Amino acid sequence: METLKLRKICIDTYRENVAYLHRDCPVYRSEGFQALSKIEIHKADDGTPVIAVLNVVDDENILAPDELGLSEQAFTQLDLADGTGVQVAHARPPASLQAVHRKIAGERLTLDEYRGITRDIKGNRYSRIEIAAFLVSCTETGMERDEVLSLTRAMVETGKRLDWSEPLVVDKHCIGGIPGNRTSMLIVPIVAAHGMLIPKTSSRAITSPAGTADTMGVLAHVELSPDQLHNIVRRERACLAWGGKARLAPVDDILIAVERPLSLDSPGQMVASILAKKIAAGSTHLLIDIPVGPTAKVRSRSAALRLRKLFEYTGDHLGLQLEVVITDGRQPIGRGIGPVLEARDVMQVLNNHPDAPADLREKTLQLAGRILEFDPDMRGGQGYVIARDILDSGRALAKMEALIEAQGENPGRPTPGKLQQPVLASASGMITDIDNLQMAHIARLAGAPMDPGAGVDLHRKLDEQVKQGDHLYTIHAEFPADFHFACEAAAAASGYRVETTGPTGE
Amino acid sequence: METLKLRKICIDTYRENVAYLHRDCPVYRSEGFQALSKIEIHKADDGTPVIAVLNVVDDENILAPDELGLSEQAFTQLDLADGTGVQVAHARPPASLQAVHRKIAGERLTLDEYRGITRDIKGNRYSRIEIAAFLVSCTETGMERDEVLSLTRAMVETGKRLDWSEPLVVDKHCIGGIPGNRTSMLIVPIVAAHGMLIPKTSSRAITSPAGTADTMGVLAHVELSPDQLHNIVRRERACLAWGGKARLAPVDDILIAVERPLSLDSPGQMVASILAKKIAAGSTHLLIDIPVGPTAKVRSRSAALRLRKLFEYTGDHLGLQLEVVITDGRQPIGRGIGPVLEARDVMQVLNNHPDAPADLREKTLQLAGRILEFDPDMRGGQGYVIARDILDSGRALAKMEALIEAQGENPGRPTPGKLQQPVLASASGMITDIDNLQMAHIARLAGAPMDPGAGVDLHRKLDEQVKQGDHLYTIHAEFPADFHFACEAAAAASGYRVETTGPTGE
Repeated sequence: METLKLRKICIDTYRENVAYLHRDCPVYRSEGFQALSKIEIHKADDGTPVIAVLNVVDDENILAPDELGLSEQAFTQLDLADGTGVQVAHARPPASLQAVHRKIAGERLTLDEYRGITRDIKGNRYSRIEIAAFLVSCTETGMERDEVLSLTRAMVETGKRLDWSEPLVVDKHCIGGIPGNRTSMLIVPIVAAHGMLIPKTSSRAITSPAGTADTMGVLAHVELSPDQLHNIVRRERACLAWGGKARLAPVDDILIAVERPLSLDSPGQMVASILAKKIAAGSTHLLIDIPVGPTAKVRSRSAALRLRKLFEYTGDHLGLQLEVVITDGRQPIGRGIGPVLEARDVMQVLNNHPDAPADLREKTLQLAGRILEFDPDMRGGQGYVIARDILDSGRALAKMEALIEAQGENPGRPTPGKLQQPVLASASGMITDIDNLQMAHIARLAGAPMDPGAGVDLHRKLDEQVKQGDHLYTIHAEFPADFHFACEAAAAASGYRVETTGPTGE
Repeated sequence: METLKLRKICIDTYRENVAYLHRDCPVYRSEGFQALSKIEIHKADDGTPVIAVLNVVDDENILAPDELGLSEQAFTQLDLADGTGVQVAHARPPASLQAVHRKIAGERLTLDEYRGITRDIKGNRYSRIEIAAFLVSCTETGMERDEVLSLTRAMVETGKRLDWSEPLVVDKHCIGGIPGNRTSMLIVPIVAAHGMLIPKTSSRAITSPAGTADTMGVLAHVELSPDQLHNIVRRERACLAWGGKARLAPVDDILIAVERPLSLDSPGQMVASILAKKIAAGSTHLLIDIPVGPTAKVRSRSAALRLRKLFEYTGDHLGLQLEVVITDGRQPIGRGIGPVLEARDVMQVLNNHPDAPADLREKTLQLAGRILEFDPDMRGGQGYVIARDILDSGRALAKMEALIEAQGENPGRPTPGKLQQPVLASASGMITDIDNLQMAHIARLAGAPMDPGAGVDLHRKLDEQVKQGDHLYTIHAEFPADFHFACEAAAAASGYRVETTGPTGE
């Protein structure tokens, strides 16, 4: 086989390995490669080959005919110096792809087959279209609950697993979709103030106006090294950090990179994804929040119950103590949507401020109470009261301040966006609907989460009476273009429905 | 919106549009793009935007921060000069993707929904993972026969359609998988000698050792312009050309580019793909050949019958006269596997040479006879005899010579590969199995179809008695490395099974 000179091509192809060959490369011609062929790149010492999808280059300024180019991620994976001699060949399809074809044909796969699939995905032997094929074959109709269990188990096995060496490591997770739903930033200090271990890592927003990591980032540093994170958790019993660096359940990260652009959101994948990450993070007890509402991810109570059973089945078989709470997802939680505005809500609740949004406080206490009852010494039903005591007494605020100090306070704390536009009620009547999706959309257009001060501040919530011209909410932005887009979108569809009541009050 | 300078990046990403932005590009930062985001590129005059998947560049030698790079296909599609000002934005997901999600959920789609999907695919609004999702959702379990009909109809509508202005335009198609099965090169001259119009276009091999276009290419030019093709067909009533330039049923070409690497081969997709192409090519009457055998694409007679019914249902509803013939696919047809060796077989049959392979001749006459009976003036059952007369009388040979001359004879006709290695029977007995897949694999390793003289020449076929040491077949190659790989593969598994009979003859 002919040897080619390795060359790093400084192109970020995200989670897909791409290799580049010049069209006049002798190997490209003799092997009958085509653009988008999958090829294996072998080191001289015959280690595990790296698999990549081929792009063909027609420009010697990018790549010479005797070179093999690799995109950034693939180059890092191969871990050889520029100029090293490497050999390439057609990649054999990964062995586990046969199981994917059986899944496509509607068959049920075994644990060993899911193990094979996750191993090959972790080894970057799947192209993105193969991952898409696997994910589609595993949609609601396609995956039995024991398969969800197998996939979860296999995903846990293919990653690292943290061990906190304590019998009770708690966590909470919301399946998402509700703007402003920042309960984690309140539950963590309450639960940690009680002494429970709650090492909470969160994601940044991808399609929403803010993730917990974005909102916490307004107050403190959230990008912690594994060592920093470990030390803070040991000292404070908690953290509120970004989980992106942990690389737990790496297969899940790869699957999500295909799931997201496809908007695939099957219950089986969701349960496997969430539970694999939590188990890998060392959690022993987990509270899951499933909001239900017409514009939430889960739209009916019966769908929520099915999802709860799937969480319970999978968690039980993996030794995870799991509570699933179905909550009201008919509207955003709190007032602020966007990092700065949400952080304001959170701090108002912690400060027992008179303007603190009551719904955020109440939901927090409900969920925190359920988590506190994971404590075997706590009497059933007492969690809520104890959570309230911790919050009202200021102990939760003190714990939050300690966490902010431990993680490093954000020196230049941002403020709400200076460009402001109120959105008014077009009629008098009762607010009967607030569209979660539209509110999130307007907040993102305004610049959230990239501009932390951007977003939407709600002044009215469901079931309130308004008069024509009352302020429903205010749009905040930092930049005129974003501001303009957000105001335009709100003018086209405010996201609120106000139902006028007739003169007889009917 | 910020304007970027367009730049062609000379990278061939095949059928996926790729856009490149520098990591320091202000738009990349402000819009919150990620690598693999789908973006829309707008011309200043506000025509149809081009959709592309984003790669992020970290090297100013490839792309400057104020530029937008496009891969070759995307650049051609946008059709603007280097340096033109363009604007980019997040691409909205194609509207028809909602139908794909409904298909994934197991629902049945309407003709209008298939129309929306094919229009968006033709408009390059689908990424490759979205196409993969669509294809997987349409597998055997997922597609009703009226949906196959809708998809076929929608694919025909999205492309050009040839009109030969004759009531009888015949074609034939084999679903593939059988090495050496070059009946088209015999059927076309026979049928055209009878006066029927048979404008046959074929593909080159992608995963097989030879396509009809590769084998015909040994004898004559096959890359004809639409005008050349038209003139030849008008004069000779036939052609044997490569169909790659026709761009009929363009959606099918895009789907196949994802189907192939995924090895997806669902009956519904296959039927829609074949029939859409044939209808677009102006065929009125079509013969389909379904070979059945343990190493053929279709492995059981019942599967072949199901496939036949699906062909018939779809063809009937689209006004295509269709005959489906189920044939013996237990072994390769003829002796040669690889372009030159297959062309030799074809010419031997046309010349009524005593060494001509009898099975190729016989299968040709069976199929040609069925096609001749599409002629309303022909008595049922007489096709075979008339086909034999045309072949035996030399009229088929004369027509083939006329076609070769019309298309342009290949001046440097290649010969069988000079490197030769016989493969011997390891025991005495009867040949009970010849593995189509292994024989194709060995021929490809030897260099077919890239080196037209490379391949395998079979000396023995099924049910023949051999003695230990008899030559089963000969490997031909042009280059030592290929030759070595092919011989090694044949040594590991010859592809033949010889069953020894005991001394009592049991």
